[in-house]
Amino acid sequence: MTTYGTTGMGSGQIQDEHIRETGDLISADKVTGTTVYNAAGDNLGTIHDLMIDKRVGRVAYAVMSFGGFLGIGEKYHPLPWNVLTYDENKGGYNIDLTPEQLKSAPSYSRDEMMRFGSSTADERVDTYYGGLGYPPLV
Amino acid sequence: MTTYGTTGMGSGQIQDEHIRETGDLISADKVTGTTVYNAAGDNLGTIHDLMIDKRVGRVAYAVMSFGGFLGIGEKYHPLPWNVLTYDENKGGYNIDLTPEQLKSAPSYSRDEMMRFGSSTADERVDTYYGGLGYPPLV
Repeated sequence: MTTYGTTGMGSGQIQDEHIRETGDLISADKVTGTTVYNAAGDNLGTIHDLMIDKRVGRVAYAVMSFGGFLGIGEKYHPLPWNVLTYDENKGGYNIDLTPEQLKSAPSYSRDEMMRFGSSTADERVDTYYGGLGYPPLV
Repeated sequence: MTTYGTTGMGSGQIQDEHIRETGDLISADKVTGTTVYNAAGDNLGTIHDLMIDKRVGRVAYAVMSFGGFLGIGEKYHPLPWNVLTYDENKGGYNIDLTPEQLKSAPSYSRDEMMRFGSSTADERVDTYYGGLGYPPLV
């Protein structure tokens, strides 16, 4: 997990790359568009958006998108936030899942993502990642 | 708080406006850019970004921006998530603060926002809103 302090970030040395990231906090704007890698270093996709639980202000899922072109055929993987670990060297997130685990993970089309959370779809995700040792952050 | 169900959102009736919002969840992308109003209905600003607590995946603050032009002179108000209440009729968030309370609330320049969270700046915000009855969501 990256930790940018104030070192080298005096007001005269603005580094746009590091804007809106601090030791404990990161902006939603900076998370989205970030690449996701597996343990082998393969590029799996990018963080498309964050789904916020409105009642408690929790990041319920980071939605990883991969494949597709102009949204056609694109698939969305909702990932529990605690599945992602920031890797400063890669400048992206690692997820420690095997190709088989990822292949079996719940994924959704664009249309299906629209309805995500209003049905039992999110329970599928919680159950799947809970079984891999990533219980939902309550 | 708005609740979009699956009603009228069949695959043949895609409503872009409602994409990525469901009963319990809302996307970070949809939150940012949303207008913030006070009880009198005055437009106070817009949600600029969300600051996520990396360790626990919590929305620590919604950053409201107001004033300024092309970022020059713009001021940023970090607001605890629970200060905001979505108003479906207005299509924006309400905050129940008097003009005096808002005027006294911690606000930051763009440069200061860059360093927000790495110092004691966020404690100022927690203390201020805690005193108004909005303790930090732990």
